[in-house]
Amino acid sequence: MTEGPVRTEAALIEQDRVTDWWSTAVSRVRPGEILLRGYPVEQLIGHVTFAEQIWLMLRGELPTPLQGKLLEAALVSAVDHGPQAPSIAAARMAATCGVGLNSAVATGAGLLGDTHGGAGQQCMEILERIVAGAEPRAVVAEFRERKAYVPGFGHRFHPHDPRRDPLLALVREAVEAGEVPGRALAAGLALEAALAEGRARPVPMNIDGATAIVYAELGFPAELGRGLFILSRSVGILAHAWEEHGSGTRIKGPLPRPLLAGYHGVAPRDLERARRMG
Amino acid sequence: MTEGPVRTEAALIEQDRVTDWWSTAVSRVRPGEILLRGYPVEQLIGHVTFAEQIWLMLRGELPTPLQGKLLEAALVSAVDHGPQAPSIAAARMAATCGVGLNSAVATGAGLLGDTHGGAGQQCMEILERIVAGAEPRAVVAEFRERKAYVPGFGHRFHPHDPRRDPLLALVREAVEAGEVPGRALAAGLALEAALAEGRARPVPMNIDGATAIVYAELGFPAELGRGLFILSRSVGILAHAWEEHGSGTRIKGPLPRPLLAGYHGVAPRDLERARRMG
Amino acid sequence: MTEGPVRTEAALIEQDRVTDWWSTAVSRVRPGEILLRGYPVEQLIGHVTFAEQIWLMLRGELPTPLQGKLLEAALVSAVDHGPQAPSIAAARMAATCGVGLNSAVATGAGLLGDTHGGAGQQCMEILERIVAGAEPRAVVAEFRERKAYVPGFGHRFHPHDPRRDPLLALVREAVEAGEVPGRALAAGLALEAALAEGRARPVPMNIDGATAIVYAELGFPAELGRGLFILSRSVGILAHAWEEHGSGTRIKGPLPRPLLAGYHGVAPRDLERARRMG
Amino acid sequence: MTEGPVRTEAALIEQDRVTDWWSTAVSRVRPGEILLRGYPVEQLIGHVTFAEQIWLMLRGELPTPLQGKLLEAALVSAVDHGPQAPSIAAARMAATCGVGLNSAVATGAGLLGDTHGGAGQQCMEILERIVAGAEPRAVVAEFRERKAYVPGFGHRFHPHDPRRDPLLALVREAVEAGEVPGRALAAGLALEAALAEGRARPVPMNIDGATAIVYAELGFPAELGRGLFILSRSVGILAHAWEEHGSGTRIKGPLPRPLLAGYHGVAPRDLERARRMG
Repeated sequence: MTEGPVRTEAALIEQDRVTDWWSTAVSRVRPGEILLRGYPVEQLIGHVTFAEQIWLMLRGELPTPLQGKLLEAALVSAVDHGPQAPSIAAARMAATCGVGLNSAVATGAGLLGDTHGGAGQQCMEILERIVAGAEPRAVVAEFRERKAYVPGFGHRFHPHDPRRDPLLALVREAVEAGEVPGRALAAGLALEAALAEGRARPVPMNIDGATAIVYAELGFPAELGRGLFILSRSVGILAHAWEEHGSGTRIKGPLPRPLLAGYHGVAPRDLERARRMG
Repeated sequence: MTEGPVRTEAALIEQDRVTDWWSTAVSRVRPGEILLRGYPVEQLIGHVTFAEQIWLMLRGELPTPLQGKLLEAALVSAVDHGPQAPSIAAARMAATCGVGLNSAVATGAGLLGDTHGGAGQQCMEILERIVAGAEPRAVVAEFRERKAYVPGFGHRFHPHDPRRDPLLALVREAVEAGEVPGRALAAGLALEAALAEGRARPVPMNIDGATAIVYAELGFPAELGRGLFILSRSVGILAHAWEEHGSGTRIKGPLPRPLLAGYHGVAPRDLERARRMG
Repeated sequence: MTEGPVRTEAALIEQDRVTDWWSTAVSRVRPGEILLRGYPVEQLIGHVTFAEQIWLMLRGELPTPLQGKLLEAALVSAVDHGPQAPSIAAARMAATCGVGLNSAVATGAGLLGDTHGGAGQQCMEILERIVAGAEPRAVVAEFRERKAYVPGFGHRFHPHDPRRDPLLALVREAVEAGEVPGRALAAGLALEAALAEGRARPVPMNIDGATAIVYAELGFPAELGRGLFILSRSVGILAHAWEEHGSGTRIKGPLPRPLLAGYHGVAPRDLERARRMG
Repeated sequence: MTEGPVRTEAALIEQDRVTDWWSTAVSRVRPGEILLRGYPVEQLIGHVTFAEQIWLMLRGELPTPLQGKLLEAALVSAVDHGPQAPSIAAARMAATCGVGLNSAVATGAGLLGDTHGGAGQQCMEILERIVAGAEPRAVVAEFRERKAYVPGFGHRFHPHDPRRDPLLALVREAVEAGEVPGRALAAGLALEAALAEGRARPVPMNIDGATAIVYAELGFPAELGRGLFILSRSVGILAHAWEEHGSGTRIKGPLPRPLLAGYHGVAPRDLERARRMG
């Protein structure tokens, strides 16, 4: 099909319809030019950090240096939680199945759903409510009534999450420097205090709560907090997939030989007999 | 953007360019009409089996009833191999992570790569060589020299694969009925015999070899044999994902409490100290 | 690590903990044996249809022949809807990116989420409500108030879905044969009638509604109806991925040359200047 | 199953077998402790950049500050190439299908296969050959004979890739500072020169070639260069998925209304008639 010299207004309308369908504000790519949120990519290379670039792509503007560092700290904090995590284990298994490294990473990222990666987003939504006026004790009572965990607090694993304190310290610094409002931090601490009331053992803030505070202070919407967790955890997913890929193991299942998966189904039966019986 | 009455030849050329880009011979979908390989879908519903429909979509024509039954038997044979298989285990884990059932199925299918699902395709390629004149003993020698397994034979798990005999019996019936040529069957049996020569323990044909013979006899290209294995195994993947989804387990990793993943990395170290040392 | 002769009760307890963690009722796989829902796989090969095998794996028992045929018809009906569907388009693109056929299928299945594959499940949930006593007109009013479509009815594409009538005819036959209760069918028809009341143009049942009725009549839970849609649509996904794979196109994007994606972001700007300004 | 006080040596052996199966050198996660390549995570938060953390997780040691900045520049350079890229387009479509943001990111990453993301890795392998002594002109002749593109050079899109010069400038600085050997840079430039010989139009280095040089100079294995491209491109994938998610579009296919996918298959035909004919 030749392009032809006839480019009528209707032809341009038809073409526009399709290119509009795939229009974006994130980037403009033309022969010889790549604009990322309006900036030529060659101006960004070597002049912004990877965390600043992430912010730019998601938010449309560059952060201040201190905001960039706070984002960076949160991204660093959540990169890995070991092979107990299904996202990591699944990626490790994928890396032994003869699929590309990209597929192993995709496998891991695909497991970061509402229950395995959603707590940060859910916590951000709760912080929003408290910043908007909700009473922390009331929120705690609400969850206690539903017999549900408050996302961002407690941990199936760590009595005290080692990532909480350094992240909150960085948030405090940013508040003192006037770079972030400090309201999400106050909300999170109030929630932590309300959770501790009348309990022998506290219910400390965990990584989801700490990063929720960071991302909320930095102005990210709750669902984008989930996206940032995905970028962060992809680093650990890649590292583990790479390590397993180099192990030489083939078709790695969850159990090593000679262990076999258990069975709790019906007793062995015969098809013909079952069909005769009805 | 209004469609307008101006539809010049150039406009149609522009539109054609895009719709051509997404053109297919598999189906035609227009308001009120769905043609699958030329047949109106309403004619197929209730008049073809699911296996016959699969054949139609992939090959463009319907199979004979006996060809359809042979395909059906192969699809039935490979649906599952238990949670030891990484495709099954990963799908089970995904089902506990708060992603949809479709994502759990996609996770499992994503692991059916060259090493965990590719043996059938690789075996079909070997059968093609033998049907084209390659000497089975030479092929065996080739693999022995590379210290590699011949795909389709032996098994990490089954001394005798219970799926081999019923599948080969069905192929023999089809050969006797004149429905399939019988050449891939002969090639596969010759390969099995060549593998057994001079060995105390035979190297019996496994599911990949048996289904390779079936798909080759039915005229499927090797890579499409892999596609059929994926459709088949997706059934087991779905069944396992569904079962795990109903278990109530959340964020299922590979190890049950209180087991922890092992560690064989560097000893704990201090960042400041490491930086001071250089 | 040697297996050793010491197998104390505690050792067996430890091993049991892990194999229990991966226990299933779907299948039992031991050297030389594969039981699928209790039946040796070699008894099933050649003796059950693929649709009957799907039912067995998901439900734990075999269907009657007529139930199997009804399931088969529903599976056949939903295999494809052409490259306009994102699940199909994404799989076609994947097939040109140098990933395996399994990854292309996984890509397509991964897009069958709540909005692109969830309508059948949502419709089944509505049918359950009506069978349990909810008044169809009230349900319709509920959706009208939310300005939402009733899942399973109307269609963005077909004024009359060609798959509705043959599927409902088969359900009626099964009702008359006493094989299915007929309550979901009555509920679906009542809903369709209620939707038509007081409207110039009817809001006919579409494929999601028709298959919802089939799966509900056959006793499948709503979410498993989604799983069955995934198995069905995977056939079309595979067929399209296979076709595109054979096209020779590399790295197929959504737009053919020379069309470019549109841009509606900020005007081109300079990084240094932006930083100087503050 | 109770844990019980009996923990014999055999019990520990059984447990060890499983935890060894999931052992890693990347991280150690114990209650209250997270070591990443030996460093407590709380020491890393706020003290390393995200790029340095990526290096640490993949390589096991921290980079020098200059090495970290060079990695950072390469990661920034490849974040996006617009919706023409299938990885971006597929992720945008996924974001409208009612799957989580993580699934949209996984969809995009899943398309970064050998042909859409593999060129950097393939170019690194060629640079290794030249550094090891292969003659650039011979390599060029090899590819010309196979009528194949030399990965890393030329571009389907950019006559001059705007990312080449800033990346190579940063490599030169690092060479002059004695931080990287400079051999991969020399190899890449020699290859570019050899490609230009006797041609009217040069075949300039593109992003895959430039980042290949960076990653090779930094000592990353070729396949890990692919992994780094995946981490980088995931940022653009997330940004585009997020934008599309916010657009309100549902079930976005490749074509806007009223365009339909083309059809080049068999003419419409009748099933009964086809079956009667044989």
